[in-house]
Amino acid sequence: MQGAFMANRKSASGRKPRNLEQVAGNGLLHRRLFLTRGAAALGAGSLGLLTAARAQELPPWMRIPGAPMTGHGRRARYEEHIQRLTTSAPGTDGSGGSRTPLEALEGMITPSGLHFERHHSGVPDIDPDAHRLLIHGLVDQALFFDMDALSRYPMVSRIQFIECSGNSRLTGLAPEPVSGTCGELHGLVSCSEWTGVPLSILLDEAGLDPSAHWILAEGADAAAMTRSVPLAKAMDDALLAIYQNGERLRPENGYPVRLFLPGYEGNMSVKWLRRIKVTAAPMMTREETSKYTDLLPDGRSLMFTFPMDVKSVITSPSPGLELAGPGLYQISGMAWSGLGRVARVEVSADGGTSWAEAALTEPVLDKAVTRFRMAWRWNGAPAVIMSRAVDETGAVQPARDAIIAAKGVNFAYHYNGIQAWRVGADGQVVNIHV
Amino acid sequence: MQGAFMANRKSASGRKPRNLEQVAGNGLLHRRLFLTRGAAALGAGSLGLLTAARAQELPPWMRIPGAPMTGHGRRARYEEHIQRLTTSAPGTDGSGGSRTPLEALEGMITPSGLHFERHHSGVPDIDPDAHRLLIHGLVDQALFFDMDALSRYPMVSRIQFIECSGNSRLTGLAPEPVSGTCGELHGLVSCSEWTGVPLSILLDEAGLDPSAHWILAEGADAAAMTRSVPLAKAMDDALLAIYQNGERLRPENGYPVRLFLPGYEGNMSVKWLRRIKVTAAPMMTREETSKYTDLLPDGRSLMFTFPMDVKSVITSPSPGLELAGPGLYQISGMAWSGLGRVARVEVSADGGTSWAEAALTEPVLDKAVTRFRMAWRWNGAPAVIMSRAVDETGAVQPARDAIIAAKGVNFAYHYNGIQAWRVGADGQVVNIHV
Repeated sequence: MQGAFMANRKSASGRKPRNLEQVAGNGLLHRRLFLTRGAAALGAGSLGLLTAARAQELPPWMRIPGAPMTGHGRRARYEEHIQRLTTSAPGTDGSGGSRTPLEALEGMITPSGLHFERHHSGVPDIDPDAHRLLIHGLVDQALFFDMDALSRYPMVSRIQFIECSGNSRLTGLAPEPVSGTCGELHGLVSCSEWTGVPLSILLDEAGLDPSAHWILAEGADAAAMTRSVPLAKAMDDALLAIYQNGERLRPENGYPVRLFLPGYEGNMSVKWLRRIKVTAAPMMTREETSKYTDLLPDGRSLMFTFPMDVKSVITSPSPGLELAGPGLYQISGMAWSGLGRVARVEVSADGGTSWAEAALTEPVLDKAVTRFRMAWRWNGAPAVIMSRAVDETGAVQPARDAIIAAKGVNFAYHYNGIQAWRVGADGQVVNIHV
Repeated sequence: MQGAFMANRKSASGRKPRNLEQVAGNGLLHRRLFLTRGAAALGAGSLGLLTAARAQELPPWMRIPGAPMTGHGRRARYEEHIQRLTTSAPGTDGSGGSRTPLEALEGMITPSGLHFERHHSGVPDIDPDAHRLLIHGLVDQALFFDMDALSRYPMVSRIQFIECSGNSRLTGLAPEPVSGTCGELHGLVSCSEWTGVPLSILLDEAGLDPSAHWILAEGADAAAMTRSVPLAKAMDDALLAIYQNGERLRPENGYPVRLFLPGYEGNMSVKWLRRIKVTAAPMMTREETSKYTDLLPDGRSLMFTFPMDVKSVITSPSPGLELAGPGLYQISGMAWSGLGRVARVEVSADGGTSWAEAALTEPVLDKAVTRFRMAWRWNGAPAVIMSRAVDETGAVQPARDAIIAAKGVNFAYHYNGIQAWRVGADGQVVNIHV
């Protein structure tokens, strides 16, 4: 068989394989494999029964000139099936969400065309020349901007994630594991480079009244999405984001300008931002009273649970990606925390009996997705793989059982439990609860 | 007039503006503006003659439900005019290049749809299931991969630029400045997150013969693009890149797999990679003899000038972006070096008489584009703005005159001179030579 990364044997050159130290149960190998340079000799690709002549045959696409250059590129036609999964409330097509196909992606950046969506009345078609942003309320002087005026302010850029606080509850809080791909189950999280104007600059310019403690942010969609945000967050690292991954925001991400609150539940990063009112207290909008509160077993609800907790998920292998047979594989996944940087990700291949530390891809950034990777020698027997992230505050991603013991199953937001995938002897991967 | 960032006066709250220390001639302000938090009070947006009622009027897009969610997002229709500029050799549509519209972008990442292109016989339409990669030559055992086998190897991700070595020569080496936008003049550079398999792993597995010192990389396009690469680079940080900005490579960037050589002239990062032959010496292909050599005034040519030198350009203001009148503006630009990290970028607003240090956006990464920004109070008089980058090796971006004095005007690659833009009293920006 052609292919590589297969065998537990000496390398082709007769040297002993290096860097294949097992570090935890069921075939997990030391992360130094990803951290050193030019040091592997893991298995063998081989010509097998193929001759060198076959290997050098010209493929058909070398026999004809290729396609012309284009003003704006598209994906390969072989990749167009990679799509977000959209779901909407009954009777609507714009009140719902679409999920990033995490299992098809690698690295830290989410391509903007696959960034998750969550809308309450669809995507407005906003003329940027007609869009206005008002800052008023408890300020010395109300301010009113068009996009040209806003774009003259100093900007900053940051690579940071955004996650819907309802992410992962679909399976995490269900009595039985829900079948689905990694993206279908956990795809309400994405990571982009955001560029915009620090909100603090504008609030400082407006002049804050001493009684100011919150802001209300309002979107220009038909739902007029509104959320209250503590002034401390607004003055800390809140952005009025205008660019995403280098270009102007996509419509479904708030074009022409959105609020961006690093690490906070996604719903608060109000899209299509048209108004910021500085207030003394939260305005108790629908989205912070009837929704986005966490119902506890004793009937009380937690309110204003803003930061997204530390979390991780293995994106490969994951359901829908089949293992071709025993041998060496890369385990790849993503970790993030709304509280800061990811400090460590541990991986288990034996259902949590033993754990080993994965390699983190640099740069590890504040409130960004961090890619982790680990080499795994699968012996072909059924196995349960899982990941557990720890952030720089020391917060540890909890087990599902621990979350349910503490909060019950009637809360709907901020589920961050450890995800387990079961790899069958046939190489199929399924979602399980452990 | 509505709008902000305009006036040199006290802030609305009556506090004195902070952080507006002038640090170089003609209105350049200290970079701390971009580095501190919540500390600006630069000017004033104002409701002017507008009433608060007008400011809160509902725009038309709030009166109707928005568009549904989609499987794969598109840009706003108001942004679709942002396109690459394509040029091709006479009689062809696939032998040429397309340039990234740098003046329309912000941050570090180039959206994949706007990444520059340079092709020698168009973009091949490659079936990834039929694509093969052969590694042979001075190795113990030839290796042959399909994409599934290649994708099982350990991967790494890095945010790094790629630049065509012919970038910027269009105006830099012309006797008179060429009119054009920043992208038209300098847009053969882009920056992405690249994910792939370190080539060193595969070469180590193949087993290198002691006589091996170079590799030949061959593309699967109709031009069968080939370049020789020193083995030391191949074993250092070369990637077989499979993902770009999170998703699989775009066709014009080498789908399904390309060589990626950080910091080296773009032509060497062979796209649609089908073959690597390990050799004792460079193979002296067309692309390293008749092309991609630098003709000197004495008739000799430099060969194998691989790394791209330190460089920067101001993307805003730049030709096509008009200043609306005297007042405060953000100067924004990009800097990069094929030798390592950008250490410093200096900006002048008086044609090079005085310089001040710009703010660099973190993270500043090895061989990545680094965004720099500076606040500028334009007094409305004609001004010449320019930027000068220094990298961590101490290399300084040279003046155009110094390059021409050293290398003449008949070389065609690796031009990295300082770019000057002239801002007229009417706010128009044009390319000039200084």
